[in-house]
Amino acid sequence: MQRGSIAHLSRRSMIAWLGAVAVAYAYLTCSIATAQTDPLPSWNDGTAKQAIIEFVQATTNRAKPTFVPPEERIAAFDQDGTLWVEHPIYSQVVYCLDRVPDLVKAKPGLKDVEPFKTVMSGDREAIARLPTRELLKILAATLTGMTVDDFRGQVSKWIASAKDPRWKRPYTELTYLPMQEILGYLRANGYKTYIVTGGGQDFVRVYAEQTYGVPPEQVVGSAGGTTYSYNKSGKPILTKEPKLLLNDNDAGKPESIHLMIGRRPVAAFGNSTGDRQMLEYTEAGDGPRLAMLVLHDDGEREYAYGPAQGLPDTKVGTFTQKLYAEAMKNGWTVISMKKDWKRIFAFE
Amino acid sequence: MQRGSIAHLSRRSMIAWLGAVAVAYAYLTCSIATAQTDPLPSWNDGTAKQAIIEFVQATTNRAKPTFVPPEERIAAFDQDGTLWVEHPIYSQVVYCLDRVPDLVKAKPGLKDVEPFKTVMSGDREAIARLPTRELLKILAATLTGMTVDDFRGQVSKWIASAKDPRWKRPYTELTYLPMQEILGYLRANGYKTYIVTGGGQDFVRVYAEQTYGVPPEQVVGSAGGTTYSYNKSGKPILTKEPKLLLNDNDAGKPESIHLMIGRRPVAAFGNSTGDRQMLEYTEAGDGPRLAMLVLHDDGEREYAYGPAQGLPDTKVGTFTQKLYAEAMKNGWTVISMKKDWKRIFAFE
Repeated sequence: MQRGSIAHLSRRSMIAWLGAVAVAYAYLTCSIATAQTDPLPSWNDGTAKQAIIEFVQATTNRAKPTFVPPEERIAAFDQDGTLWVEHPIYSQVVYCLDRVPDLVKAKPGLKDVEPFKTVMSGDREAIARLPTRELLKILAATLTGMTVDDFRGQVSKWIASAKDPRWKRPYTELTYLPMQEILGYLRANGYKTYIVTGGGQDFVRVYAEQTYGVPPEQVVGSAGGTTYSYNKSGKPILTKEPKLLLNDNDAGKPESIHLMIGRRPVAAFGNSTGDRQMLEYTEAGDGPRLAMLVLHDDGEREYAYGPAQGLPDTKVGTFTQKLYAEAMKNGWTVISMKKDWKRIFAFE
Repeated sequence: MQRGSIAHLSRRSMIAWLGAVAVAYAYLTCSIATAQTDPLPSWNDGTAKQAIIEFVQATTNRAKPTFVPPEERIAAFDQDGTLWVEHPIYSQVVYCLDRVPDLVKAKPGLKDVEPFKTVMSGDREAIARLPTRELLKILAATLTGMTVDDFRGQVSKWIASAKDPRWKRPYTELTYLPMQEILGYLRANGYKTYIVTGGGQDFVRVYAEQTYGVPPEQVVGSAGGTTYSYNKSGKPILTKEPKLLLNDNDAGKPESIHLMIGRRPVAAFGNSTGDRQMLEYTEAGDGPRLAMLVLHDDGEREYAYGPAQGLPDTKVGTFTQKLYAEAMKNGWTVISMKKDWKRIFAFE
């Protein structure tokens, strides 16, 4: 390295000043842009949008008693039904069913064994009738037994090619644009955004960074154990085991948040009874809090289920009357897809 | 908000430019400072120091094929014996023993029950002779059964008052200055630094941010389950259960890294056989890797144990001949406290 010469120093300072000009320009542009740009353009004006903006302003203004230090700014988002479509069937279950043909190819004996036989028949009604016990066999066979690297490869391939039958688009395009805007808005204001999902942690981690801007280490989900060993070449491998370590639903959500994050979120977003305890736990902390529930009341643009339609609960993505009542009681903010969202998907 | 007026805009741009000048000044000062400052001043020149600096240069220079994108820059540090003193007894075990009087005060019946009776006797030799089975009873009684908030309070209080008998200083001052420098140097170069400890995750999280600059969400450790419930006022609580969820030693380290981080580290630092699998797993990834082992060979300034002294392994902080041989074989860099460290503690 050249050091100490005047020529070197002045070149260095010139570069520094050029850098500063660039920074200043970016700063200026950004300030003007911020002043004039709505951070949540896909939201209609209303209590939900207002609650988000007021919460961010209250927690990021140092002059206010409601200020939250940057390191405490943790926001937790459920995924299925909160960040992307969960109806009529979880995408991860579709993944597991789609993996069955490859599985049978690798182990031909399976084609005559239930529940694989039914899945291979392609009879949608029969598949839909499979009892939970049988479905769990499919999940275990397609989500465990391989190395974590092989699993990542299998999911990546599926994510790149599989399409939702209604919208004929990759599942990763079925994320809610208004929720993506909240993710970005919170991050722009110093929040660390976490996904806290009942879905498989390893599954969601494959696409979360690209799809939501959430890195793997900020995805908390249901997780099985892994076992460390060595392959034939002596290389260390981690194999996914059919042993549930974290069931990231209901009380499992705050428990996993404690285990994986170690801080109580100040903001949480959910849509089903599986999110109730996470919302309660978030709300119970000191200082300003934001707890929001996505209500699926738009049968035209997405789906309508839960209390908005007076429908009975379904197993998938329930939003029970009881939870809705609790939301009302606790002052959680309910997001009506129909009223609050100008657009639902980015591709619309 | 005022918008659109020329007066407003020009005041805004003035502020922006003033900000830019400050940024430029900081940038300039910082560039000069970096060019002239050794990032590892407590290290003697040698292969260990050189390995760290070369690794950082290789992984952060975009022009090199060894460049590692910022999001992949994960560094994992064992704690006991790697970041702070572990000899002759883990600080967390001292904490558990120190908690016994309060425990007996709360449940007086315990004072006549072993192993609490022996601990209350203050007979150091008898305490040291307690079998593991009995020690585990003390750990369970002092690390579980309370809410996570109460536990945090108890540990904070102890950390603020307890002192190591040899140095007569708080345990948090017994961190190795050269390792603190690596933590800071890596972070300054875009690395996310994680502690991956066999010690209790909840315990280490209490002081890790203040002591090491490592936030709770970047502390991975042995962890028990918690249970979500409600206290008498109906407030949600998480209670620590005597049920081991993660044993973050040996193969448990890469398994926990996968669970908690979901990425393979590119750099790892350890000192005992409990770190072997973490180092192997780190090394086995593609691209540049840094795997380092702290060798306790300085009986005067700290302690000497392990292969450097030809001592037999002890239960605490072993650094077996086998691990040392593996380090040599795999090209892991051994850090000799005696030769490589100019200073060991910041207070010296």
